[in-house]
Amino acid sequence: MGRTLAAKLIESHLREGAMTPGEEIALGIDQTLTQDATGTLVMQELEAIGLDRTQADVSVQYVDHNLLQADERNAEDHTFLRSACRRYGLWYSKPGNGVSHPTHMQRFGVPGASMVGSDSHTPAAGSLGMLAIGTGGLDVARAIAGQPVYLRMPEIWGIRLTGELPPWTSAKDVILELLRRHTVSGGVNRIIEYHGDGLAGLSAMDRHVIANMGAELGATTSVFPSDEAVAEFLRAQDRGDDFLPLAADEGATYDVTDEVDLSTLEPLIAKPSAPDNVVPVREVAGTPVQQVVIGSSANPGLRDFAIAAAMVRGRQTAEGVSFDVNPTSRQIFADLTKMGATFDLISSGARIHQSGCMGCIGMGQAPAVGHNSLRTFPRNFPGRSGTREDSVWLCSPETAAAAALTGEIIDPRDFADKLGMTYPSLALPKKASVDTEMMEPPLPPDEARREKLVKGPNITALPDFPPLPDRIEAPVLLTMGDDVSTDEISPAGAKALPFRSNVDKLADFTFTVIDPDYPPRARELAGSGGHVVIGGANYGQGSSREHAAITPRHLGLRAVLATSFARIHWQNLVNFGILPLEFARPADRERIDVGDVLTLDDLRATLPDSHELTVRNTTKGETYPVRHQLSPRQVDDVLAGGVIPQLARGGR
Amino acid sequence: MGRTLAAKLIESHLREGAMTPGEEIALGIDQTLTQDATGTLVMQELEAIGLDRTQADVSVQYVDHNLLQADERNAEDHTFLRSACRRYGLWYSKPGNGVSHPTHMQRFGVPGASMVGSDSHTPAAGSLGMLAIGTGGLDVARAIAGQPVYLRMPEIWGIRLTGELPPWTSAKDVILELLRRHTVSGGVNRIIEYHGDGLAGLSAMDRHVIANMGAELGATTSVFPSDEAVAEFLRAQDRGDDFLPLAADEGATYDVTDEVDLSTLEPLIAKPSAPDNVVPVREVAGTPVQQVVIGSSANPGLRDFAIAAAMVRGRQTAEGVSFDVNPTSRQIFADLTKMGATFDLISSGARIHQSGCMGCIGMGQAPAVGHNSLRTFPRNFPGRSGTREDSVWLCSPETAAAAALTGEIIDPRDFADKLGMTYPSLALPKKASVDTEMMEPPLPPDEARREKLVKGPNITALPDFPPLPDRIEAPVLLTMGDDVSTDEISPAGAKALPFRSNVDKLADFTFTVIDPDYPPRARELAGSGGHVVIGGANYGQGSSREHAAITPRHLGLRAVLATSFARIHWQNLVNFGILPLEFARPADRERIDVGDVLTLDDLRATLPDSHELTVRNTTKGETYPVRHQLSPRQVDDVLAGGVIPQLARGGR
Repeated sequence: MGRTLAAKLIESHLREGAMTPGEEIALGIDQTLTQDATGTLVMQELEAIGLDRTQADVSVQYVDHNLLQADERNAEDHTFLRSACRRYGLWYSKPGNGVSHPTHMQRFGVPGASMVGSDSHTPAAGSLGMLAIGTGGLDVARAIAGQPVYLRMPEIWGIRLTGELPPWTSAKDVILELLRRHTVSGGVNRIIEYHGDGLAGLSAMDRHVIANMGAELGATTSVFPSDEAVAEFLRAQDRGDDFLPLAADEGATYDVTDEVDLSTLEPLIAKPSAPDNVVPVREVAGTPVQQVVIGSSANPGLRDFAIAAAMVRGRQTAEGVSFDVNPTSRQIFADLTKMGATFDLISSGARIHQSGCMGCIGMGQAPAVGHNSLRTFPRNFPGRSGTREDSVWLCSPETAAAAALTGEIIDPRDFADKLGMTYPSLALPKKASVDTEMMEPPLPPDEARREKLVKGPNITALPDFPPLPDRIEAPVLLTMGDDVSTDEISPAGAKALPFRSNVDKLADFTFTVIDPDYPPRARELAGSGGHVVIGGANYGQGSSREHAAITPRHLGLRAVLATSFARIHWQNLVNFGILPLEFARPADRERIDVGDVLTLDDLRATLPDSHELTVRNTTKGETYPVRHQLSPRQVDDVLAGGVIPQLARGGR
Repeated sequence: MGRTLAAKLIESHLREGAMTPGEEIALGIDQTLTQDATGTLVMQELEAIGLDRTQADVSVQYVDHNLLQADERNAEDHTFLRSACRRYGLWYSKPGNGVSHPTHMQRFGVPGASMVGSDSHTPAAGSLGMLAIGTGGLDVARAIAGQPVYLRMPEIWGIRLTGELPPWTSAKDVILELLRRHTVSGGVNRIIEYHGDGLAGLSAMDRHVIANMGAELGATTSVFPSDEAVAEFLRAQDRGDDFLPLAADEGATYDVTDEVDLSTLEPLIAKPSAPDNVVPVREVAGTPVQQVVIGSSANPGLRDFAIAAAMVRGRQTAEGVSFDVNPTSRQIFADLTKMGATFDLISSGARIHQSGCMGCIGMGQAPAVGHNSLRTFPRNFPGRSGTREDSVWLCSPETAAAAALTGEIIDPRDFADKLGMTYPSLALPKKASVDTEMMEPPLPPDEARREKLVKGPNITALPDFPPLPDRIEAPVLLTMGDDVSTDEISPAGAKALPFRSNVDKLADFTFTVIDPDYPPRARELAGSGGHVVIGGANYGQGSSREHAAITPRHLGLRAVLATSFARIHWQNLVNFGILPLEFARPADRERIDVGDVLTLDDLRATLPDSHELTVRNTTKGETYPVRHQLSPRQVDDVLAGGVIPQLARGGR
């Protein structure tokens, strides 16, 4: 029986466990990626662990989120992160170098390597045949410390691509089609492995688009074979020697299968406010648009900007439309500039912003209420743009550029027909504007040991994490529906992000998208028995930020009862000592109201002993059977109050 | 006796008054300029006046300040401003077109025309031989409504320029030299007129640098002759037909004179935290630098960026330095890109930001506390950067680029010696990348009348302005020293600026740089008799923002007692019904403490009758002679509660 590429990658990094779906496995990690919004906590964790030097082959700290610098806190975070890189032997990628995922791919990605990153879009590196997993920061800190990363062995989902994309469609339409078919939870506990003849027409950066937004399907990661497209990409980066061919065996069998005939795809768009709210562009044609944004790790490639530039060349954006362009990396910006595309974009009326995530993470570019914003971004969860009542749509650069010129949503094919435009054929350079000096390399160990961490006043110590009590008796503070994202639990945006190194301050933003009164209500109870919240299916989808566990924990959250959990957030809850429980009877969720007091007894005895527990609703006099999916290792962690107290006392 | 150019320009626009220094004159206005941070109030004022259509030849609304869009308020301001332009017949310059001053110069500036602008750097247009004056928004609103603008006839200060700038010095060093000689109050009640052979070596954009920062000298405006340099500039803009030669008569005599031999200048730098804190760069060489920013209306020219690009070409910025570049306008960005300078800047490690004011007005780019930031900006008042305890230095692009590469302050001549670099000779295009489509032109009148203002929820109505009471009896809430700037009275920055259309919210930032408790203390007294503040010399220098009058007025400020006032702020106080009084005996200022109750009696009788008044300190049992400089027209305005109530009841 032929083996899948995903299975080979896992096997070559397996440290513990059996490769049976659902079993806990431990993976050795070759590379780590941190960005600044999650990285300051990781560095604080390394300090708490007492780390001497990273044990990974390559550890890179990127600065791509907190770039606005509305006050001194962003710059002080950058200073702190650089000092931590110098101390712990990490690479430092300064502001302006670009978004972590494409930048990492350009400078460090290696076929066959494993990587964890404290960013949910880390799987983008699967485009090069890497096994790249997004995790909470603490898991990255452990990997930096040389420890394995634990996860449940996922199913392998083989998606066969056939045919060739028609003109005016591109990689973004492939992943939007998969979101249309399978929704934001379709990939949960799965690794998506792409194979088939259709790959031939997709460049490594096109595959990045698809692998990146595998996160929106909820997948553990996505994997592409390392083939000629990867070799070509690496040669363009002056790294041809890093190429290693990798593929599934002939006739490999997958746990789950699907097929996309690329030739049948048409331009697609995700309507507000979920990435799986996908329809053909023609279905919503004529909708007025006030903002169009191109950029982010979901459309990071030179091609993605160049196609937009070719479409707007010699034309002007529609009156009243803000056309925002975020070149994803320094290299791509340089290439775009050299080939004339930057000039074409500027001349068409575009606003060119600094390289980085920008509006994708609510760092500026917030739209007006009641006006539509079309973006080539990966996510459009409510409020993520920085505008609470936003109307954000997700689409390809082709669909975006057509809207920028017309001021309304229009299928790019219809746009082209109107103008008599043929699909631009792009002359992209074979050789990228490689700049190896933009990255600050690790210091030699003896020099590194003399470095001091530079902490501004906003970079506080982590709060204490006392053990889980043996008995939880606490009121329900929130009841929520399905697909609550970490953007709703711990919002991003220009107001909250500067506090990412200051847990107590950041806690004041917790759940405020859902209920602005949650933080004061929770603080009131924090001293006594804390509280509980109720979620639906796919609870905690989206971004990997561990702040979505750490801030409610700091406010006294003891347990989350939900129908099901998104993988990274579930792991983050465990890491920070919050008990994640699943309803055995999903309908029980509807029976619980805000204010009900829930009780769980004898936790120290029951949790290690059984996966089945009973929750009593003392207000209503009811009981609900629930279960947990914790491994014995994780039960230990939760009872101890989380991984930090474990590490602090020299444990795991 | 030969006449000065300034006198000719005034005479050709004189509507009322005699051209005797100190006398009130009224000037007819040809052009108006508003930017978004002050413009939303101007548009609200036009609405309050009930304007049908602008009466100026050219009225342009720029969007260059509020570009970060951290939430929906910025975008809603832009939407509102565009709707107001459509309604009132103004040009609309969208976000990304660039900073108002250089953009206006490129597209609309005409030798010999008069202009008012609700931005203190409006005098930059003096580079083209315009008479351009920065005022509060209300004065611009009146000019849009076709009314004259009132000011006291200034003295004419002739500055003769001779010689030629040596290599590694540029226009910025000229204005820094004048600030070194004459301080931030040296130009108060003066128009600076440049003349002499030295002009031959200064392009129109170089003159913009000098005229722009005449605002930092406190000058009413600065004027350059319209000569071959201006003709060349206009030809490059496809506007050669707009050229008109203008100059002072041979042997014109000036009220005050000075001379600068350009050949004797060396690279200069203003230390934190005042623009006149100027020393030779060599005196502070070796000071470590963490941030370098190039851009703003104080160094807006293609040359200013191109020289920096030529210096960094093929080199990398120093590790740990953030090198930020804000291309000033769309046109300049396009030209820089076409000539390869953008590529050189990107490749050297620069962060390229969207075209606009950005960090110059504290809109992002805030430095870390305790780290030095070198900027080619016009101002470094404390906290203006967005960081309360900042260390901002002002210098030329040459000095800035040298610091970006070395990580410390270094005289660019010494930098060049080290590298064996000769002063780059720049090949600038003769023809600019002119884009006439980027501006949205006024609608025809009948179409305009059908347009509605689009107001987001943050755009509130102006508060009421009741008349000045006949008797002021109120405590002193603040005593301040000399040179308090409007940045300290009503801060800019990413937190405050989004509230520029919401007076009550914005009021919570009033004076908080000086005393964070001022707003609550003032609000407590607002219902009763209000309060008074005490200032030193040159009170209210800096930005023209009328918010620095309107927000303290809203919080109950009745009178300011100061040693002397900066012109624009003094006018804004009058416009919003606050009584500006000057100490007859400057030493009395020191006798007054916070908490003292001051009393002024019979104001309705005394103010029109005499310029001398007496203030009683009822707490200390003392009296102080003070005087006011109000014209009868202005006494009327102040007694009525300001110009808005006057206009609302159909008066002036």
